[in-house]
Amino acid sequence: FYLCCMIIDNDTICAIASGSGKGALSIIRLSGNKAIDICNSFFHSKNLNEQKSHTLHFGTFKKNDSIIDEVVVSVFRQPNSFTGEDIIEVSCHGSSYIQQQILHSFVQAGARLAKAGEFTFRAYANGKMDLSQAESVADLIASDSKAAHQLAIHQMRGGFSDDLSQLRSELIQFASLMELELDFSEEDVEFADRKKMLDLLQHIQSVLEHLMNSFKVGNAIKNGVPVAIIGKPNVGKSTLLNALINEEKAIVSSQAGTTRDVIEDVVQIQGISFRFFDTAGLRNTMDEIESIGIQKAIEHAKKATILLFLLDATQVIETQIEELQKLANFPITNPLIVINKVDLLPKNSHTIKEAIYISAKNQQGVSELSSQLVNRLGMDSLNNGNTIVSNARHFEALQNALKYIKQSIDNLNNGLSSELNSLDIKQALFHLGEITGEITTDDLLDSIFSNFCIGK
Amino acid sequence: FYLCCMIIDNDTICAIASGSGKGALSIIRLSGNKAIDICNSFFHSKNLNEQKSHTLHFGTFKKNDSIIDEVVVSVFRQPNSFTGEDIIEVSCHGSSYIQQQILHSFVQAGARLAKAGEFTFRAYANGKMDLSQAESVADLIASDSKAAHQLAIHQMRGGFSDDLSQLRSELIQFASLMELELDFSEEDVEFADRKKMLDLLQHIQSVLEHLMNSFKVGNAIKNGVPVAIIGKPNVGKSTLLNALINEEKAIVSSQAGTTRDVIEDVVQIQGISFRFFDTAGLRNTMDEIESIGIQKAIEHAKKATILLFLLDATQVIETQIEELQKLANFPITNPLIVINKVDLLPKNSHTIKEAIYISAKNQQGVSELSSQLVNRLGMDSLNNGNTIVSNARHFEALQNALKYIKQSIDNLNNGLSSELNSLDIKQALFHLGEITGEITTDDLLDSIFSNFCIGK
Repeated sequence: FYLCCMIIDNDTICAIASGSGKGALSIIRLSGNKAIDICNSFFHSKNLNEQKSHTLHFGTFKKNDSIIDEVVVSVFRQPNSFTGEDIIEVSCHGSSYIQQQILHSFVQAGARLAKAGEFTFRAYANGKMDLSQAESVADLIASDSKAAHQLAIHQMRGGFSDDLSQLRSELIQFASLMELELDFSEEDVEFADRKKMLDLLQHIQSVLEHLMNSFKVGNAIKNGVPVAIIGKPNVGKSTLLNALINEEKAIVSSQAGTTRDVIEDVVQIQGISFRFFDTAGLRNTMDEIESIGIQKAIEHAKKATILLFLLDATQVIETQIEELQKLANFPITNPLIVINKVDLLPKNSHTIKEAIYISAKNQQGVSELSSQLVNRLGMDSLNNGNTIVSNARHFEALQNALKYIKQSIDNLNNGLSSELNSLDIKQALFHLGEITGEITTDDLLDSIFSNFCIGK
Repeated sequence: FYLCCMIIDNDTICAIASGSGKGALSIIRLSGNKAIDICNSFFHSKNLNEQKSHTLHFGTFKKNDSIIDEVVVSVFRQPNSFTGEDIIEVSCHGSSYIQQQILHSFVQAGARLAKAGEFTFRAYANGKMDLSQAESVADLIASDSKAAHQLAIHQMRGGFSDDLSQLRSELIQFASLMELELDFSEEDVEFADRKKMLDLLQHIQSVLEHLMNSFKVGNAIKNGVPVAIIGKPNVGKSTLLNALINEEKAIVSSQAGTTRDVIEDVVQIQGISFRFFDTAGLRNTMDEIESIGIQKAIEHAKKATILLFLLDATQVIETQIEELQKLANFPITNPLIVINKVDLLPKNSHTIKEAIYISAKNQQGVSELSSQLVNRLGMDSLNNGNTIVSNARHFEALQNALKYIKQSIDNLNNGLSSELNSLDIKQALFHLGEITGEITTDDLLDSIFSNFCIGK
């Protein structure tokens, strides 16, 4: 197999682990063999070497005989720490001067400034978590909505890894049986049951496809679900944006073509971040600036996870939908149909079942629209604790694994040699292993951990 | 006496204690009777009530059965904590969503959001530190230079309090002897030795005056020492500013009157923050905007701790000084004389002893100027561990105490009744007690602690 290991050096690393803004407290973190020794040489109240793991110690931090601060030191002894190494955390007063003095002291005493993500990398390298769990730590820190937080914590606690590892171990079993066949190739035996094997591969195919399908939603949740509000001029797109964000952001006027730039805002609905894009109304126009605006509207429509068609209740609905599809000039599947200006209709004239009737001006129907947006994401699977893929690297690995699984199914169906099939299954295993980090390369690790913040 | 006590309520208080910026970790702090109980109801790995003081515990933080984060909880039991109460610190991942969820959990479970400075107030109220020490905690957090840090840590460790408490206890002894005299007033005895008393009062007077004198420097160090660069047009003031900050900030041209606005920048010299003000050149002018600039220059000159006269080496020095003093139109004592453009002079023509000769253009003499600026502050006293007053409230209290000490000295010299003298000494004691908080009012405490950041 292609297994490759990154080597951890023996350096003791240090960094400021708390936020950079002004605060009452700051945390400076040390990890490595010499962590306790290094801190001990500045801590003048007791001998930290004699202290047990998971204990707290109040005392003065001195540098060259001048007192830097009164601090509380946390002692974590290996292997029961985040990184699996000895860890010291110094809690000092939140002055930037004090933070720098403590950090400089540690560096002078032989520690090295940690690279981004290096603490979490050591946790991974020391077997405290797998790669997909380690990656979720950065997502967890960045999470600012309930849904993004849920995705990250599910992954950090090993949800995704568990799903994959079972599939992987079943596949490995078959792969080794096939290796065995190759050793006995002259005798033409079949240790691996071809029927069971096909079942397994098809099961894996469906799981991988399911996981890959979740990526569009997962990625959107992490970064905010993009919703493009598309419609003809003057149907009330800006009024709808303002109603959704509950603020007068977009300029509203009765004049068609008021909006030219794409106006964007983020709203949290049921714990999910939605990024709404209010766009120029689609129409054929000679105005150059408006044309550019319309082009931008179409670009956003193509990239959106949810495409919202906003229509005017006082005009023929079917015609409007047709016109929009024609003006957009790209194939649109399943747009969310929203019909505005119901305040101008007689009551009970909501004739189209799958549409949502609203009056953006009167904030009527906006909460129903919000619920429909959440439903569109199929978030039930998230709430049921199912795995949703939110990481582009994982998506790519799944895609590659799926390719070889499909080839392998074809091989079986076409009765191709087990030698060839064995190669395809190894490739699939390789790509599945990339996700949890059982198989890695240095470049991959570098690119993953460099996205972390310093101190984690 | 006027002693007054603020009452602490029994609430358990909570706040985010770490900085607000993005970071790997955040700390949420709880203090009060119910701190451990409240945290325990969300912490699902062990029973925190059974844990010893000064211990650390890893586990999951759950709210309504959903996992918020994997956290490390610090347990401090009263009285051995910062506030003197039970304290819990939760170290979680630095996501704003997680911080808010934990804080909300605590509030729902009965904790109250802490007011600014409330943790430190409790430390003071529970006798963990006196008022001047408590005040220095806020200064310590705000300190961003070595000198400001040194001032604050000296005060936090009780330096100032020690100085005062000895004087105060000697004074109290005399005051009680005088009280005794009043009880025996019909017998005309003198328990208090008038000679010794006069010596003590005069000693106190000199200490108070010394402390008050340190305030100008102390306050300047805390906020940055203001240095006004004053000179006639075209002597190179902006060039000097740029040389000091090592950057092209102020616009430099050969045209007189280039600088109109006051340009400000902060430079750290030997660990002290200096705020330099580059000002419009002083001259009689008809230009309205330039006139306003000159008026501003003079205002800054009046407020500066150090007034730097910048002169042109190629012109008569004495005349320039006279002209500047006339144009400034307020009494200037002891300006720092700096003579620029020495590159245009023949060598060894530095005739004025107390002046500093520089060439701002060539960065020549700038480091000598820097040393002189530091010398001007008389920072030796700081380095010798002497107390420097940096707090306006303390300065005011010292001023009030001094007034009554002086009155008391007059009373003794004029042979006035001990009854009168006793009142003055009580007033002096009252004002000295205000500094360390032996004597306080609710208003005073409110105004002190409201300057803190939340979480401290």
